[in-house]
Amino acid sequence: MTYCVGLKLDRGLVFAADTRTNAGVDNIATFKKLHVWEKPGDRVITLMSSGNLAITQAVVSILSEHINASSSDRPTLMNVDTMFQAARLVGSAIREVRAIDGEALQANADNFYVTLILGGQIKGEEPRLFQIYSAGNFIEATDDTRFLQIGEHKYGKPILDRVTRRDMRLGEGAKMILLSFDSTLRSNLSVGMPIDLLLYNTDSYSAERQLRISQDDPYFQKLSAGWSKSLRDAFVNMDELEV
Amino acid sequence: MTYCVGLKLDRGLVFAADTRTNAGVDNIATFKKLHVWEKPGDRVITLMSSGNLAITQAVVSILSEHINASSSDRPTLMNVDTMFQAARLVGSAIREVRAIDGEALQANADNFYVTLILGGQIKGEEPRLFQIYSAGNFIEATDDTRFLQIGEHKYGKPILDRVTRRDMRLGEGAKMILLSFDSTLRSNLSVGMPIDLLLYNTDSYSAERQLRISQDDPYFQKLSAGWSKSLRDAFVNMDELEV
Repeated sequence: MTYCVGLKLDRGLVFAADTRTNAGVDNIATFKKLHVWEKPGDRVITLMSSGNLAITQAVVSILSEHINASSSDRPTLMNVDTMFQAARLVGSAIREVRAIDGEALQANADNFYVTLILGGQIKGEEPRLFQIYSAGNFIEATDDTRFLQIGEHKYGKPILDRVTRRDMRLGEGAKMILLSFDSTLRSNLSVGMPIDLLLYNTDSYSAERQLRISQDDPYFQKLSAGWSKSLRDAFVNMDELEV
Repeated sequence: MTYCVGLKLDRGLVFAADTRTNAGVDNIATFKKLHVWEKPGDRVITLMSSGNLAITQAVVSILSEHINASSSDRPTLMNVDTMFQAARLVGSAIREVRAIDGEALQANADNFYVTLILGGQIKGEEPRLFQIYSAGNFIEATDDTRFLQIGEHKYGKPILDRVTRRDMRLGEGAKMILLSFDSTLRSNLSVGMPIDLLLYNTDSYSAERQLRISQDDPYFQKLSAGWSKSLRDAFVNMDELEV
């Protein structure tokens, strides 16, 4: 499995993705699931992926090849005018992969399964955040629903439900998402470190606030240990049930 | 769906079950999923159920009918010597229901799906706790794995993973389980109040510590609000991520 979170705040966007892939529990590997396309001063577009790795890699390759192709009259992530159009391009790439591989996957009794989070900002628009499904269709995060999750999303949802506020700073949002990852990592083996993070400030058109957080990262270790202690302390300080 | 937790501590057992059943989101109802058979001074046996309501009700009815039948030479929950034998009786009841209804369910493209938590104490043994599957086979909780969950288990697992200790008092265990329910109730509509609870003290052979906690229960409201506040305070007091 996978765990990825996209968060839309007033000050910008936060993206986080784990890096574990597995084909059975005895074949695990580390793959980057957070992909960034950047044209400084004009756009930052981020894509995070969950599902069949062959499919998600093919989608990313198609999107990148179109950008690199010399014929520049075709719409690509680097020249479309809106994030909505970018989301449609990603949907088309999924449908292209299905056209190529779908029948063979079906013949092999494998599902065609992929879910993506796409977010970013193109000059002239506000930052936007989308979740794109296997069929290539998609939904967009709104003021009511500020975060989107893909993959192993249940363990880490309670903290997001409780803490998310639209006026958080990006560093606060990242802290909340890392706590959501901490709960998920403790309870589910199919999600694994390191975690890739991108903090995108509205109107910065820059993807420079990126980092990879490894198992032995001092900030993450302190956060994880401090959170456990706070939870245990809070637990001890509440009255127990009298029956 | 459903959410039920069984917890095995040094001082006894704690059982908790929600009461929501649904056939689609537009047809929800309240049904008791925590069933208790008691022979004071000799045994307390508790069964909690998740899955197809028709199947779980049939299992409970079969177990009860066998107890009430006049021919007392048949093994029943009230006369077996060990909890292992009780678990085998429950497994047999599941297989009996499958023999009666399985083919018709299959013809209707419905799955035969049921998962049960069975726990209690029979004089001469320590308290024991089992999880019983659709096939009628089962596993038992051990010193390494002190809680069993059935139904919508992921949202409420992180708190159990972090806080469970074998030397907890039963009231503390119940407090932890109610916090696990609180997280689940906030994130998932298919789990609903009231919550049925049973606290069983080792060697008491009594099921008197039972209660039903409703939405407006003052203890639960205070616990839920206090926990939210503690989590938010703990969150605010931790350093945010600097990138």
